[in-house]
Amino acid sequence: MIIALAQINLHVGNISENMTKIVLCIKKAQQYKADLVVFPELSICGYPPLDMLDYRDFTSKCTDAVENIARICTDIAVIIGSPSLNPNKQGKSLYNSAYFLFAGKIQSIHHKTLLPDYDVFDEYRYFEPNNHFTIAEHNGKRIAITICEDLWFDQKFDNSFYNNRLYSASPMEKLINQNPDFIVNIAASPFSWSKVQQKKEIFINTAKKHGIPVFMVNQVGANTDLIFEGGSLVINHKGELFDRISWFEEDFQIYELQEVLHSPAHGKKQVPTESIQMIYRALVMGIKDFFAKSGFQKALLGLSGGIDSSVVAVLAAEALGHENVYSVYMPSRFSSELSREAACKLAGTLNISFQETGIDNIMDSFQESLKPVFEDIPEDTTEENIQARIRGTLLMAISNKLGLIMLNTSNKSEAAVGYTTLYGDMNGALSVLGDLYKTQIYDLARYINLHKEIIPEDVISRPPSAELKKDQKDTDSLPDYDVLDKILFQYIDQHKDISSIAEEGFDKNLVEKIVHMVNSTEYKRYQSPPPLRISSKAFGRGRRMPLVAKF
Amino acid sequence: MIIALAQINLHVGNISENMTKIVLCIKKAQQYKADLVVFPELSICGYPPLDMLDYRDFTSKCTDAVENIARICTDIAVIIGSPSLNPNKQGKSLYNSAYFLFAGKIQSIHHKTLLPDYDVFDEYRYFEPNNHFTIAEHNGKRIAITICEDLWFDQKFDNSFYNNRLYSASPMEKLINQNPDFIVNIAASPFSWSKVQQKKEIFINTAKKHGIPVFMVNQVGANTDLIFEGGSLVINHKGELFDRISWFEEDFQIYELQEVLHSPAHGKKQVPTESIQMIYRALVMGIKDFFAKSGFQKALLGLSGGIDSSVVAVLAAEALGHENVYSVYMPSRFSSELSREAACKLAGTLNISFQETGIDNIMDSFQESLKPVFEDIPEDTTEENIQARIRGTLLMAISNKLGLIMLNTSNKSEAAVGYTTLYGDMNGALSVLGDLYKTQIYDLARYINLHKEIIPEDVISRPPSAELKKDQKDTDSLPDYDVLDKILFQYIDQHKDISSIAEEGFDKNLVEKIVHMVNSTEYKRYQSPPPLRISSKAFGRGRRMPLVAKF
Repeated sequence: MIIALAQINLHVGNISENMTKIVLCIKKAQQYKADLVVFPELSICGYPPLDMLDYRDFTSKCTDAVENIARICTDIAVIIGSPSLNPNKQGKSLYNSAYFLFAGKIQSIHHKTLLPDYDVFDEYRYFEPNNHFTIAEHNGKRIAITICEDLWFDQKFDNSFYNNRLYSASPMEKLINQNPDFIVNIAASPFSWSKVQQKKEIFINTAKKHGIPVFMVNQVGANTDLIFEGGSLVINHKGELFDRISWFEEDFQIYELQEVLHSPAHGKKQVPTESIQMIYRALVMGIKDFFAKSGFQKALLGLSGGIDSSVVAVLAAEALGHENVYSVYMPSRFSSELSREAACKLAGTLNISFQETGIDNIMDSFQESLKPVFEDIPEDTTEENIQARIRGTLLMAISNKLGLIMLNTSNKSEAAVGYTTLYGDMNGALSVLGDLYKTQIYDLARYINLHKEIIPEDVISRPPSAELKKDQKDTDSLPDYDVLDKILFQYIDQHKDISSIAEEGFDKNLVEKIVHMVNSTEYKRYQSPPPLRISSKAFGRGRRMPLVAKF
Repeated sequence: MIIALAQINLHVGNISENMTKIVLCIKKAQQYKADLVVFPELSICGYPPLDMLDYRDFTSKCTDAVENIARICTDIAVIIGSPSLNPNKQGKSLYNSAYFLFAGKIQSIHHKTLLPDYDVFDEYRYFEPNNHFTIAEHNGKRIAITICEDLWFDQKFDNSFYNNRLYSASPMEKLINQNPDFIVNIAASPFSWSKVQQKKEIFINTAKKHGIPVFMVNQVGANTDLIFEGGSLVINHKGELFDRISWFEEDFQIYELQEVLHSPAHGKKQVPTESIQMIYRALVMGIKDFFAKSGFQKALLGLSGGIDSSVVAVLAAEALGHENVYSVYMPSRFSSELSREAACKLAGTLNISFQETGIDNIMDSFQESLKPVFEDIPEDTTEENIQARIRGTLLMAISNKLGLIMLNTSNKSEAAVGYTTLYGDMNGALSVLGDLYKTQIYDLARYINLHKEIIPEDVISRPPSAELKKDQKDTDSLPDYDVLDKILFQYIDQHKDISSIAEEGFDKNLVEKIVHMVNSTEYKRYQSPPPLRISSKAFGRGRRMPLVAKF
């Protein structure tokens, strides 16, 4: 039996474009004489469709699309994900389903059992969980069809929640009891730099435990904030990695089942990829897909001569092509000559468009207008914020006039503690680095410069500054990023409380102060652009905190 | 048996303040010789605590607080809501629980069965559903304790989802089978202008069906966007409304069970309240609580002379006191004299602080700076947006300098179709009218002017305009609000698709155009301030759409 894995990049809601892609893959699989081609979870509509599922015409279009695909599956079987209607009167109206198509029609529908409902996931909001377990049969082989976390049930995987309350046995057990020859897992599992290894182990453990191969097909591509890494894989019945297909790009591979069962581990097996390299590729894909899927080509960003905007410029040029990146340097009286040089040099190295527009005259006009209100109140952060907002307004004006999409250049550390200006440096359609702590951005900058100085070394070596007042340094207001980021990571990504963090050797007063900064600036993050998610706990949709709570 | 209902206003996360309030009510109930005092759902922590529940120290503080309260319940019983720990290894670590306290300790814990997971509700994200049903006994009476939607199970109530897949019988049936003498329902059910009547009927139907009284205690007060209306009620065993306690304010009432069973309907029964009046009260409470709970006193808003900002000024003055409202009129060369007069007159009528700051000089400095970039490209919406952003920046500067909280003055109609400027008129900490369609704002203005002209009649009668270019009218870009709002209501609030809306007698091309405007401006709403929620489908947390989807 020949099995094709179609790791495709889907566009949420764009059913016709997704259909075209799916049909092309089926034709390709037919050319390879494949018996079966497997597509990712919710391929028809992309993941996550969110509240589009509340519209009946949308779900009808999905089910119509599946029926249309079934018609062309005359001599080949297809496993593909789509929402399906729950025919029962009780429960939610939809399932998250895997359709098994063959001989021109839908042979069976297999629903997802373990619906994730944590972080960015809201599957209980839309879907009824499955409680009926069947095996698909094709060409004499019995196939256990599972959807994403269904296969994770009896695995240890922190940060994920198993809705196991509903089941005395795991979905895998119920299927394994029916003696399948192999397991198919269709997934839409987003990237998190800390989970890559753990996810692989789940599939290895499953194959080993049950003694049958696993074929897993993951989505690839980004849907706004969510980035799917691909990395679909084939594990043989001994739990050995037979093949891992591409990260962060579409791929199509075929496998002979007998070969998976009898050959030694496959030659194409990838070497493990370093975190920082994966983050780089994730962000590039995140930018690329945001533009492709929103129908725009050109990006705009403010280049400050600092490390964050420098890294964003590099990523944007890589993702969109240097000819599509427009950068603006907007100095004030507090900007250093070093900043201008660094911004200018980087723009030259990247060969991106570069413009300089000073803000002092606009600042003066604001101060003039505000004089009757401000009277003799001394300068404070108000004046710093005005500068940031002038820059934000200039960028938005250029964005509007020239049809460019503005990229946000702020980072997770400053977003966490509120060291940002709402409607100023928090502007942008997409926050490229919003899920990277400052120390990770330094790592990324060093990775970018690994073989050649792209980002001027001065940018990396000099102390970070917002340059919003004379001789300002980030450390005037914040602890060293080395310390700050470690505390933030434990509080935000690991949900540790103050005492537990202090026990790791941090000053308790400092931890309290930082946690307070995080909790009291929730209102700023509520209005932030979506951050490209590369961790298992980004700000944005996946972290939901009250705004005027007292902690 | 004397039963006290404590309809209190809770602050999310502020356990110590909530505790103080709870203890005071218990003491008061003791003075009235009450046998039982009932508090709302999740009283200890406020509703909804959201991801604060992911922190172990937070949930420990909640359970500690309940134990402390139990200690003072020596001669009185208390029913109170709090998260409780799930002692089982399987499932989520928490329950949403009602504690029954008496004789100085926790007598029993009753968990919520039907966890809402639609719109703003994410209870499956945090809580394990109950599957164990017991009756509490006190002074010879058997009490069926239910939490919010548990009582709704066998009721028709559109827009709500019943997780009835888990149960062959409803939680109510399981409790009724155990012959309770009365039902207690503790709730945190937020206000929606269209659901008030329906919610009452649920309780009436339940009491009638089972032939026993129902005592329902709802939270009152606002937690950022979510507004709880109170309106706790007592229904006798015949399904007659015995008493309805206050809307939109704290209240404490005591009832003699025998009297509920044997007296005719209570004299205090409220007359039904009109929608528009309830909306007015909801918004006033929403503003008041946002400030009280975030620790601020003073509000700032831009007064344009238009209807939206006029209505916000009235509401803010009512909520915070005229001395705490600071208004700024920011004219440009496109502002009409009528606008200045209207803004000025309203500020005078309300006796709120009023400042005028023109924006033309700042606009000129922006245009001067942008000349090299814009070259000869003709004026377009870019210049309109710059004006809105200058105003947004001026307001934020005043807000920063004087410690005022900026109120947003945009409405649901313009938010829906994107007839707004991100980082401009979309600025603000709280969107007061973000869940009111423009036509509802006219209704509200007329309600405000019912007995006396507060908002100048000119403001209500003249055609709405953004005044961002010469002789501009909203109708240059949008259909009449009468038509627009009807289409938007069906698409957004009722989830109808294009064909179904067109079938109601609207031009299909117009419906398509409007739906496209809604779907293509999701990115703007993603960065909007939270709107005070008064409908069953507001923008914000309760409506989750993909950002770069194709529809």
